[in-house]
Amino acid sequence: MSITEATTSSIPTQATRSEHDLIGDRDIPADAYWGVHTLRAVENFPITGIPLSNNTHLVNGLAMVKQAAAQANQELGLLDGTRAAAIIQACQEIIAGDLHEQFVVDVIQGGAGTSSNMNANEVIANRALEILGHRKGEYQFLHPNDHVNLSQSTNDVYPTAVNVATIFAAKSLVGAMEYLCDAFAEKAVEFRTVVKMGRTQLQDAVPMTLGQEFNTYAVTMGEDRARLAESTLLVHEINLGATAIGTGLNAPVGYSALACRHLVEISGLPLTTSVDLIEATQDVGAFVHLSGVLKRVAVKLSKICNDLRLLSSGPRAGFGEITLPAVQAGSSIMPGKVNPVIPEVVNQVAYEVIGNDVTITMAAEGGQLQLNAFEPVIVYSLTRSMRHLEAACTTLADKCIRGITAHEDKLRAQVEHSIGLVTALNPVLGYATSTKIALEALESGRGVAELVLEHGLLTQEQLDRLLRPEHLANLGD
Amino acid sequence: MSITEATTSSIPTQATRSEHDLIGDRDIPADAYWGVHTLRAVENFPITGIPLSNNTHLVNGLAMVKQAAAQANQELGLLDGTRAAAIIQACQEIIAGDLHEQFVVDVIQGGAGTSSNMNANEVIANRALEILGHRKGEYQFLHPNDHVNLSQSTNDVYPTAVNVATIFAAKSLVGAMEYLCDAFAEKAVEFRTVVKMGRTQLQDAVPMTLGQEFNTYAVTMGEDRARLAESTLLVHEINLGATAIGTGLNAPVGYSALACRHLVEISGLPLTTSVDLIEATQDVGAFVHLSGVLKRVAVKLSKICNDLRLLSSGPRAGFGEITLPAVQAGSSIMPGKVNPVIPEVVNQVAYEVIGNDVTITMAAEGGQLQLNAFEPVIVYSLTRSMRHLEAACTTLADKCIRGITAHEDKLRAQVEHSIGLVTALNPVLGYATSTKIALEALESGRGVAELVLEHGLLTQEQLDRLLRPEHLANLGD
Amino acid sequence: MSITEATTSSIPTQATRSEHDLIGDRDIPADAYWGVHTLRAVENFPITGIPLSNNTHLVNGLAMVKQAAAQANQELGLLDGTRAAAIIQACQEIIAGDLHEQFVVDVIQGGAGTSSNMNANEVIANRALEILGHRKGEYQFLHPNDHVNLSQSTNDVYPTAVNVATIFAAKSLVGAMEYLCDAFAEKAVEFRTVVKMGRTQLQDAVPMTLGQEFNTYAVTMGEDRARLAESTLLVHEINLGATAIGTGLNAPVGYSALACRHLVEISGLPLTTSVDLIEATQDVGAFVHLSGVLKRVAVKLSKICNDLRLLSSGPRAGFGEITLPAVQAGSSIMPGKVNPVIPEVVNQVAYEVIGNDVTITMAAEGGQLQLNAFEPVIVYSLTRSMRHLEAACTTLADKCIRGITAHEDKLRAQVEHSIGLVTALNPVLGYATSTKIALEALESGRGVAELVLEHGLLTQEQLDRLLRPEHLANLGD
Amino acid sequence: MSITEATTSSIPTQATRSEHDLIGDRDIPADAYWGVHTLRAVENFPITGIPLSNNTHLVNGLAMVKQAAAQANQELGLLDGTRAAAIIQACQEIIAGDLHEQFVVDVIQGGAGTSSNMNANEVIANRALEILGHRKGEYQFLHPNDHVNLSQSTNDVYPTAVNVATIFAAKSLVGAMEYLCDAFAEKAVEFRTVVKMGRTQLQDAVPMTLGQEFNTYAVTMGEDRARLAESTLLVHEINLGATAIGTGLNAPVGYSALACRHLVEISGLPLTTSVDLIEATQDVGAFVHLSGVLKRVAVKLSKICNDLRLLSSGPRAGFGEITLPAVQAGSSIMPGKVNPVIPEVVNQVAYEVIGNDVTITMAAEGGQLQLNAFEPVIVYSLTRSMRHLEAACTTLADKCIRGITAHEDKLRAQVEHSIGLVTALNPVLGYATSTKIALEALESGRGVAELVLEHGLLTQEQLDRLLRPEHLANLGD
Repeated sequence: MSITEATTSSIPTQATRSEHDLIGDRDIPADAYWGVHTLRAVENFPITGIPLSNNTHLVNGLAMVKQAAAQANQELGLLDGTRAAAIIQACQEIIAGDLHEQFVVDVIQGGAGTSSNMNANEVIANRALEILGHRKGEYQFLHPNDHVNLSQSTNDVYPTAVNVATIFAAKSLVGAMEYLCDAFAEKAVEFRTVVKMGRTQLQDAVPMTLGQEFNTYAVTMGEDRARLAESTLLVHEINLGATAIGTGLNAPVGYSALACRHLVEISGLPLTTSVDLIEATQDVGAFVHLSGVLKRVAVKLSKICNDLRLLSSGPRAGFGEITLPAVQAGSSIMPGKVNPVIPEVVNQVAYEVIGNDVTITMAAEGGQLQLNAFEPVIVYSLTRSMRHLEAACTTLADKCIRGITAHEDKLRAQVEHSIGLVTALNPVLGYATSTKIALEALESGRGVAELVLEHGLLTQEQLDRLLRPEHLANLGD
Repeated sequence: MSITEATTSSIPTQATRSEHDLIGDRDIPADAYWGVHTLRAVENFPITGIPLSNNTHLVNGLAMVKQAAAQANQELGLLDGTRAAAIIQACQEIIAGDLHEQFVVDVIQGGAGTSSNMNANEVIANRALEILGHRKGEYQFLHPNDHVNLSQSTNDVYPTAVNVATIFAAKSLVGAMEYLCDAFAEKAVEFRTVVKMGRTQLQDAVPMTLGQEFNTYAVTMGEDRARLAESTLLVHEINLGATAIGTGLNAPVGYSALACRHLVEISGLPLTTSVDLIEATQDVGAFVHLSGVLKRVAVKLSKICNDLRLLSSGPRAGFGEITLPAVQAGSSIMPGKVNPVIPEVVNQVAYEVIGNDVTITMAAEGGQLQLNAFEPVIVYSLTRSMRHLEAACTTLADKCIRGITAHEDKLRAQVEHSIGLVTALNPVLGYATSTKIALEALESGRGVAELVLEHGLLTQEQLDRLLRPEHLANLGD
Repeated sequence: MSITEATTSSIPTQATRSEHDLIGDRDIPADAYWGVHTLRAVENFPITGIPLSNNTHLVNGLAMVKQAAAQANQELGLLDGTRAAAIIQACQEIIAGDLHEQFVVDVIQGGAGTSSNMNANEVIANRALEILGHRKGEYQFLHPNDHVNLSQSTNDVYPTAVNVATIFAAKSLVGAMEYLCDAFAEKAVEFRTVVKMGRTQLQDAVPMTLGQEFNTYAVTMGEDRARLAESTLLVHEINLGATAIGTGLNAPVGYSALACRHLVEISGLPLTTSVDLIEATQDVGAFVHLSGVLKRVAVKLSKICNDLRLLSSGPRAGFGEITLPAVQAGSSIMPGKVNPVIPEVVNQVAYEVIGNDVTITMAAEGGQLQLNAFEPVIVYSLTRSMRHLEAACTTLADKCIRGITAHEDKLRAQVEHSIGLVTALNPVLGYATSTKIALEALESGRGVAELVLEHGLLTQEQLDRLLRPEHLANLGD
Repeated sequence: MSITEATTSSIPTQATRSEHDLIGDRDIPADAYWGVHTLRAVENFPITGIPLSNNTHLVNGLAMVKQAAAQANQELGLLDGTRAAAIIQACQEIIAGDLHEQFVVDVIQGGAGTSSNMNANEVIANRALEILGHRKGEYQFLHPNDHVNLSQSTNDVYPTAVNVATIFAAKSLVGAMEYLCDAFAEKAVEFRTVVKMGRTQLQDAVPMTLGQEFNTYAVTMGEDRARLAESTLLVHEINLGATAIGTGLNAPVGYSALACRHLVEISGLPLTTSVDLIEATQDVGAFVHLSGVLKRVAVKLSKICNDLRLLSSGPRAGFGEITLPAVQAGSSIMPGKVNPVIPEVVNQVAYEVIGNDVTITMAAEGGQLQLNAFEPVIVYSLTRSMRHLEAACTTLADKCIRGITAHEDKLRAQVEHSIGLVTALNPVLGYATSTKIALEALESGRGVAELVLEHGLLTQEQLDRLLRPEHLANLGD
């Protein structure tokens, strides 16, 4: 929003240059690296107020692709060394973090990413012009389309840059998930001898340890981490060289392979070129797939946080099995109340990711014929999902998991008074007799063991052997 | 599935008649009331195996519309009295429950409902032919399209029939919701003096009564019932007389109003004709709206069932506030275990309804230009949502709510030992002092009252007045 | 993100004050109006990087509620005139647009809005302290909890502020929808005599006018506008005075009604207090409902934009019925290509809104017992849906609809050569004969009229009367 | 529904036996193989009216698991040879297709699958009793729990059976997808020389062939097939031997490995036992994952069908590139109209699958602590998704793809008159000059080639070389 206003309201008060497109002429602030195509886009898409620069990985991805293309074009003799060097330097500056604030188009935009690509073409062209000693806008020396975009189309540049950005974001998330797994695993070790009642359907079931419970979280997040890493492999396949619809029109022979090779070097990622560029240009299946896996991660995180909130419910009228670390006062009216705010924020991120998956699904389904015009909202949603999940994992580990403590005595007492112990007697007493004992215990409020003894069904020795919690939790005898 | 097989495999072994459509000739079982168009549809859409007859309300809705159209056509002089009478009688028989098994097309079908409409046209025509003393298939005497479908198009008949069916189904659901509300309200009365701890964010908050808790469920379901009734009003607007795209082509002047008037009489529903038939013919907004409200109902039911499962968790290592009636053994391995199976099945229905809402949303969004071709899957999803919610409400009331019992003593004890009591002292002691007392109580395991006395902050009399549970729960003094 | 960094990294380099909460002491930048509770929240929820200040309506809503509460407290004798006046002035300054940058907690936060409420309490307290001639942090003179939050809980303040914010945002959206309706209606008038083929299931059906088509869009958006206005009424019911769980603990008799009356005056909105405060405190059904209606709006907008993209497809190998105004160059590789970028961006907003609805649904379903802890993500999603829809409506009207032109000659020619004309002959020739003519026309490539004449089925005069496009489109004769 | 009625209403009119559970005694029809636990479930869950028998794969999966367990129990000396043999024979009869009608519990059921497991235990026990010469219900000789369910819990039996059923259903779907891929691939060959305009954002872009377009569908469905096969591998990991919560309580040492080995043999599937049975017992991540991939398949199918409907739009006022085979009359009012009903039904299946994914997501997120109680609705939704997708793929191939014909002449003419040809001149003329030519062509209605010649920009020979469609479509020169 502020960008639009800055752009338009500041025109009278500062030096401008004039640029031209198929609609007509427009004044551009003299110090802007972006040009008329970017200006049109900023005016056309005043939707979220969030500029492209917000997605650092994507800005870098665009610059990497442009650099790779320039190198390939130079080697194929399509681009002279002087212009190529200037373009390459401009791209490297962007990859190093410069000029990101010049990527001003809205993250939700029409045009299948054309405005993002043109924003990149213009910024790179103008920076390259400066490097060559020209002024911004002197496109007769180096043109955003004819030189920076040479052999390219938005329809191969943008998806490729998105893939690169996605891979970096996913790697970062994978790291945060490992970090969280480690936090769970440490607690699993710490709580490995804390016996407690396991529950199914929120009803007391049979004994286990709190260590087993936390180990489950480590294992299940570890699995998801592996699935995420796998599905990220799918976006390593790029369509650079496809140009407009995948037929490679205007891309010279050999360009595709060469550009990919350079991009691999620049990005450090093991990218490959799709074997079917027409399919690759219209298909967003890999993003649907990846989002589906992110949804899986969200579901798991949400389930774990639901459990944590349940296990720490109380302090007196709840499960009260564990205490989460206090990270802030919980209430503006109830003094001393501490709430499970960290799991709660993670739950909310999970809900957002699940909603984003529906957005991505609809955008993917809406693609028509040779292109999906809705990739920008896919990228916006996918990026938010990955970033927020990453923040959620790190926050959950640091602000919650590492500080959890257990109420060991209460947990052991619950096991010892549990009706669920009767399950262990089932193989000896049979289902019908065991059921009767359980019902009697429930109605009388008495213990399973004393009832079994009273009815003369087993001896004390037999009971001791069968009902030892560590045995029940299968910790080895 | 079985229908297709029956149809095709039985042809050699039984008498058939031949029918013709634009593709060619086909043999039809001699005793089938449906004809060649229905046969094509059965063969084309072997998707769910669930026949249209499964949706009784929709079969009736189609027959009501056909009857209303015949009456209007007769009055306008387009249809002779003999044919009209036969068609009307056939429709009335269907409305009375006959011939439903002849509605054999799959509930998920292409063609925007054309196959459902043609199935109705054919069954009614053949039954009318019989009434007139002819044999099935002798369409020269009374034709499915020229007479039964006269002045009509699938694009006005089908949506109108769907509206009628939806209203009946929604009414039935509204009744079940009232039934459930009553069950909650009865429990609210029963539990009106049972004091307990209220909880926010699963943490002990301040006292309330179990009656207030159940009353909330009655109130909240009552609100949803009202919203559902309101949104059902939106589907009382029909497009009969619109014909193909809403311009009314081939429907004579006066037909639309006349047909609507007859349909009002036949159905007993206060239907009105849309003022803009072109819009009405392509718009499925009322179904999206209604499904959104059903989703709201599902969310509430699911939340309530989550609460019930939480409050009844235990029996010993959970909240243990209430006991749900045992309706079946809970476990094949754990004797005596009783699970909250009724709330669990309601949760699952809720998840289904929420998923159906996404299906309906996508089908609505997919409509193009003058028609939405995907109304069959909208109807299928909406119908399942309404039916399953109805079953869920009734089952929840009968098998669960009415049998719930409370553990009064435990609940009162929890209030008395609660740290949340300190909230009531907040206005007197201030937030900072109250926080200190709360923390001391939490760490020491002692009671708020004794600590306040020990620190000389209040007298016993003051405390008694401030901490009386009934006062705290705002039950009046 | 930058806030967190600024906060923590800048501490050594600037003056600070010390504040205390139940966890311990923390240094706060001396010039910050927020305090220790806000600092904790900023550190605990580094999720989106979007601060609460981004939601202007919500910041204003919080200030309005705080002002209303202060006025009620003063009238009830709970708050002295000096403090009340200072609090009221501070609130008014915020409502006037000051201090919004002090609302720094993340929009996605745990704690059911407690951090938003505490951020407001602290900013207002510190500003009021300044007004009273004290320094920020001197809470002994005026305390965020004891005075600003007096008679309140997050659990009534936050939902009430959210309701107020939602009403303002919804009103703004309703205005944008009217604006869009007007644009459609103007085109409906402009195109009222442009005859064209109507289509069902993407197949040529029967004639209509382009004016009818655009009028449909005006009507259908008008309906949605009405539904949105209706559903906004549901959030006019507030729970101020409910305090922690709806029992009104610590809120004096009369407070609830008084605070509501003041809030009505301050906001200018016809708010009412819920009759059941316990239900109102835990229920988020109105948001689920409202989001369902926003989804309906999104579905309609998306369908309309799908239509616009289809009707303007071409320019030569598509439908080519209308031309959308060119607002930017369409391609970085295909010169002269102009794309439907405005409808495309609206489609993407629609997908986002539909995804947000799922997020809201899950957050609503996740509420437990006496409170829904996930209201922040509901607010975040609802706010984005309303804002982005508003931007989409305005942009669609201004950048697209108003500039649409029609290709009248081509449209009329298509009608005249259409096979769909045969439908108009159906009542005269019968379905079977009409089908034969249609098939012959399709196979031969010839016209319906000439074939009917050739077969001697009708005279030229009969044909002329039956096939006049204006007659077919039901424009009156 | 009919089952419930049959069960309860027929009790007085036929012979019964009495059975007992923890609630009390009930009469069971003498000829029923199911018993009291099944009866309770039938009465408790009158939701969908669809019995478990509808899911053949799941009934078989349960029987396979029970057989494997019996064999393991016998080898471990826990079950005598006589009972084991009877149980094994009963299971084999079910796997062979017998007694499926005895699986009468509703597909949506509370209790985490307990009722499905108990239905299986009772049917197998009663059939085994018959085999042993006893009467149904004489459980003293062979007990549903003590013998059929020996060493097992619902919580390992049901998930394992579900995995087996899912694998068989997924295999079947993979086959249908291959079948559809083949149909696309055949068309790709048939249309390999049919030149046409490619489109991006529904606007004419650059040339390609219809063969390339259909090949894309073959490639993209082939990819999805591969992804589906991969994700099916995830459900090959079972938790048999986990018993109630994964600790293996009551399952003897060695049982887990032995039972898995037998199940591998019986099913012919390469199943493995999970390394962490506690995690495996509560985790439904593999189903969320699989459903995510099914959603991906749905998105692709829907996109392809959208394309097919678009390319076949017309016959005269649409794209008219291809004709889909006529499979039924399209309209009850418009003679000769043929609609794309097969793609339409596939679209609807896709919407259903996408909705089911949300249902599955919510059910997965709702799992608590050591078990997910909502697996029945996950299974129900997943099964419907797989079945309906399978039917959709087969139907699409047989009733639509194989019969598609192309309008070659029209397609070639569109290429030759296209403005998009200018793209191929871009590298020679530059972006700015090419844009001018494109705009002139658009405004004048003239051809790109003639304008280029007229302006003397290129010679006829140069143009011929650059604009040859086969060259443009990258078919090799």
